[in-house]
Amino acid sequence: MTKQMNNTPSRGPTDHSVRDQVVDAATEHFGHFGYEKTTVSDLAKAIGFSKAYIYKFFDSKQAIGEVICSNRLAMIMEIVNAAIADAPTASEKIRRLFRTLSESGSDLFFHDRKLYDIAAVAARDNWPSAQAHEQRLRKLIEQIIVEGRKAGEFERKTPLDEATDAIFMVMRPYISPVQLQYNLDDAQAAAALLSSLILRSLSP
Amino acid sequence: MTKQMNNTPSRGPTDHSVRDQVVDAATEHFGHFGYEKTTVSDLAKAIGFSKAYIYKFFDSKQAIGEVICSNRLAMIMEIVNAAIADAPTASEKIRRLFRTLSESGSDLFFHDRKLYDIAAVAARDNWPSAQAHEQRLRKLIEQIIVEGRKAGEFERKTPLDEATDAIFMVMRPYISPVQLQYNLDDAQAAAALLSSLILRSLSP
Repeated sequence: MTKQMNNTPSRGPTDHSVRDQVVDAATEHFGHFGYEKTTVSDLAKAIGFSKAYIYKFFDSKQAIGEVICSNRLAMIMEIVNAAIADAPTASEKIRRLFRTLSESGSDLFFHDRKLYDIAAVAARDNWPSAQAHEQRLRKLIEQIIVEGRKAGEFERKTPLDEATDAIFMVMRPYISPVQLQYNLDDAQAAAALLSSLILRSLSP
Repeated sequence: MTKQMNNTPSRGPTDHSVRDQVVDAATEHFGHFGYEKTTVSDLAKAIGFSKAYIYKFFDSKQAIGEVICSNRLAMIMEIVNAAIADAPTASEKIRRLFRTLSESGSDLFFHDRKLYDIAAVAARDNWPSAQAHEQRLRKLIEQIIVEGRKAGEFERKTPLDEATDAIFMVMRPYISPVQLQYNLDDAQAAAALLSSLILRSLSP
């Protein structure tokens, strides 16, 4: 039962700042006590608003979690995009994409464990923010393959969607927070080894 | 803190049958109540032996779990070996290996959930039985690669251990019971898609 975010059209700056206040307080609270253990009542008390007032802005606790998750995933995409922007070849983009994703995931696990746990809930329960992130990554992989095919770096026989799906599947255990926690020990080695395997699979 | 199995040299047929009796009762008990929730006292009561008597044959509950796990993993290896025995090419062996492993893992999950859970504990805590199984699988992958290289099916540039490690890593999320439970939905599709990717990576 996935509740959608409250997408009511803009309510002006004051409402925006209330939303921001709730998200800020929630980020701190979830980051301290964990997402699953914090209730909307806890949040309301912490900010000094009534529970009913918070529900004017967010449909549910998940809607608040979604904003936090989206913010964090947007940050990760910025890091990824910056890392691949100046890569000289499509092959190097594949390597940097894999490495950056597994690094920023591991980083979140070790330095922001409670926020990592929200991301894990989002991935496990297929939240819209997690789905959108997955779609963005698939799109990015597809773009890199197309670029490499145009440059003559990659083979062109395999259907594009098949190559994209398979590469995403190879990366997923090191991207998805649900699975990454079991692969932290060798995430770095895996990013290198598996990037090489992916590139061998793409060679013309 | 991994305790080893009690490897005391043979004690004659009677002792063997006591060991078998304990393992049979434990398989049933663990299969019903779960490994983590069953104590050696529960087992002792169920068979009508004293706890001390069971400890004459097994160092710990884990030592009993290890025998159950080893038996099940030996069964899986038999299925795998039978599946690849008559495969006409090394490529087909890779496909059958991946498919059979993910199928027998999914099967265990859906039809013998409590035994699956023992396997998951074994994998999580790196029991000797789980380690030995992993080593057997790596060896098998290596043999298939060597066979395919000799037959001219596979490329020979990549160091053998690198190719073996990378292929094992691609398969692991669909083999390891700790991770497979998150991948059950698309295990079948993944076995097909990822086998094809692996074979593309191996092409000369």
